[in-house]
Amino acid sequence: MISVKLISTGKALPSQIVTSEDLDVSLNQSQGYTFKKSGVLSRHVALATQSQSQLGAQALTDALRTAGLGVESIDLLISACGLPEQALPNTACFIAAHAGLPAGCAAFDVNASCLSFLTALRVAAGLLQGGGYSRIAIVSSDLASRGLNWAEPESSLIFGDGAAAVIVEKGHAEQGIRAFKLATYPQGRRYCEIRAGGSQCNPRMGAQPDDHIFQMDGKAVFKLAMKVMPSFFAQLMEEAGVALSSIDTVVPHQASYLSLAHAAKLLSVPDSKIIKIYKTHGNQVAASIPTVLHEAYVTGRANPGSRLLMMGTAAGFTVGGMVLDL
Amino acid sequence: MISVKLISTGKALPSQIVTSEDLDVSLNQSQGYTFKKSGVLSRHVALATQSQSQLGAQALTDALRTAGLGVESIDLLISACGLPEQALPNTACFIAAHAGLPAGCAAFDVNASCLSFLTALRVAAGLLQGGGYSRIAIVSSDLASRGLNWAEPESSLIFGDGAAAVIVEKGHAEQGIRAFKLATYPQGRRYCEIRAGGSQCNPRMGAQPDDHIFQMDGKAVFKLAMKVMPSFFAQLMEEAGVALSSIDTVVPHQASYLSLAHAAKLLSVPDSKIIKIYKTHGNQVAASIPTVLHEAYVTGRANPGSRLLMMGTAAGFTVGGMVLDL
Repeated sequence: MISVKLISTGKALPSQIVTSEDLDVSLNQSQGYTFKKSGVLSRHVALATQSQSQLGAQALTDALRTAGLGVESIDLLISACGLPEQALPNTACFIAAHAGLPAGCAAFDVNASCLSFLTALRVAAGLLQGGGYSRIAIVSSDLASRGLNWAEPESSLIFGDGAAAVIVEKGHAEQGIRAFKLATYPQGRRYCEIRAGGSQCNPRMGAQPDDHIFQMDGKAVFKLAMKVMPSFFAQLMEEAGVALSSIDTVVPHQASYLSLAHAAKLLSVPDSKIIKIYKTHGNQVAASIPTVLHEAYVTGRANPGSRLLMMGTAAGFTVGGMVLDL
Repeated sequence: MISVKLISTGKALPSQIVTSEDLDVSLNQSQGYTFKKSGVLSRHVALATQSQSQLGAQALTDALRTAGLGVESIDLLISACGLPEQALPNTACFIAAHAGLPAGCAAFDVNASCLSFLTALRVAAGLLQGGGYSRIAIVSSDLASRGLNWAEPESSLIFGDGAAAVIVEKGHAEQGIRAFKLATYPQGRRYCEIRAGGSQCNPRMGAQPDDHIFQMDGKAVFKLAMKVMPSFFAQLMEEAGVALSSIDTVVPHQASYLSLAHAAKLLSVPDSKIIKIYKTHGNQVAASIPTVLHEAYVTGRANPGSRLLMMGTAAGFTVGGMVLDL
């Protein structure tokens, strides 16, 4: 058991809501097309004047307000986004600026694509063991809308923008991470990608506008996920030393309608235990899991003593899961 | 003391060497101009056919070979680069692919700009405490050459490409991190930046080719560094509970000729204790500190029982330091 205690969660969504009916019209499709393709009824989409780090800072402010804490009480900010705000410097610096964290507060980024939050939570738990940090804020914020290819329904209709934040401290002896597992299958590294944005592909290196847009081979992702997930989750539960039946609430990444159905089948837990916000949020990249976690708290499905299974897949291709005792 | 043991280091450089005389010619400047402006005699520059992750994988392979270890012995790969290879997925997936890590090995990124390696080392030490990981590889690789503005001598002549890797395990009781401190001053977040590459600035959002190029306000960086570093290092040494005179070797980021001179003055340690590779490597972004650490090992200035001070500044603006007992 790796001790960690979640003391508050927060959430932020852009105010603009885009319904699937709106998209039917703007994409010149028949009524019902977007919902049928995506399973999403509506998603939030940031205006061009909003930034990823502003939204992340709003989520952090929400979590601080709920806990009755000030920014000066945070020792470290971990940005756990799927994509950065810009290539340099790291996104935590921008979130820290908008949230008003005191100058000199520690801040860095953790990135495991859509599994950045789970990874950052494990990293934070590790840092809390050694001293030096007593209260850590983790912020995930992603604006998928900035890089979608509207000519590709499979990869564009399912996403939504959003941010969430979680504040953690060291827990008591029976509170924390029972197991955390991350498994990367690099053979799938090009199944979901944005080729530009780093050292390999910029305008000087011959990048084209399309290189800045999200590309996905959904079939390949699904095939690889189907292959690796059963043994992955068997190992995770074995490491946790608890039965699936002891899980109170499942907090899954909201990758797609299909992925949520697959998770329910894979885990054989009652559907009522699995939190789904996909229909009204879409896939929020790294912000999905902490947004679902926030939902678990505000709807009373995460309480002191609850056992959570958090899980998902990520571009990379990476599979991840965590068993967490609250 | 946070237990951690460095069991091997490795390094990789692109084979192409560009001397300052070469740059004098290609930039149409008088002989000696580039060296006078930068303090760099030569730097390594990757060919267009080489990638950041390939170079990182070479450094990891070097570290594994030195230790006589195979890739299958690594439980987790942390990519600790200053910039990503592409916007999505995270760079560790690409390094894992080139290094031949087994499918299913855990891999994620830590980013604190030029201080990514120090941060990743603290993260790794935290992860080793909790179980689940017994051997972690940290890889830093950066190809600054891909985003330099050759019309700006201050920000272009000082950089070099490179990669380094460090493999760590849990240490014995008197071996590890005495203190680690990271301080971000978000007011300096635009002093060094590449505006494009993420959610805020891509071609669809109106990005221009220049937005993909590194911009630096060197005077502002230096002014802020001078202001915050004295008290930062006083606090770091106080947290470490040891005197500066007990430091055997200083492993500084090789930000610039001026930064190295400033570090020597700030710390008041004999110049012979400070490792400098700047003249033949330039500023290698996040790869600088682990490359200097590798140099410390191969030149016999890092040995079991040695005490190191690793330190530097980063875009963000972030200051960082670590006191490490080997």
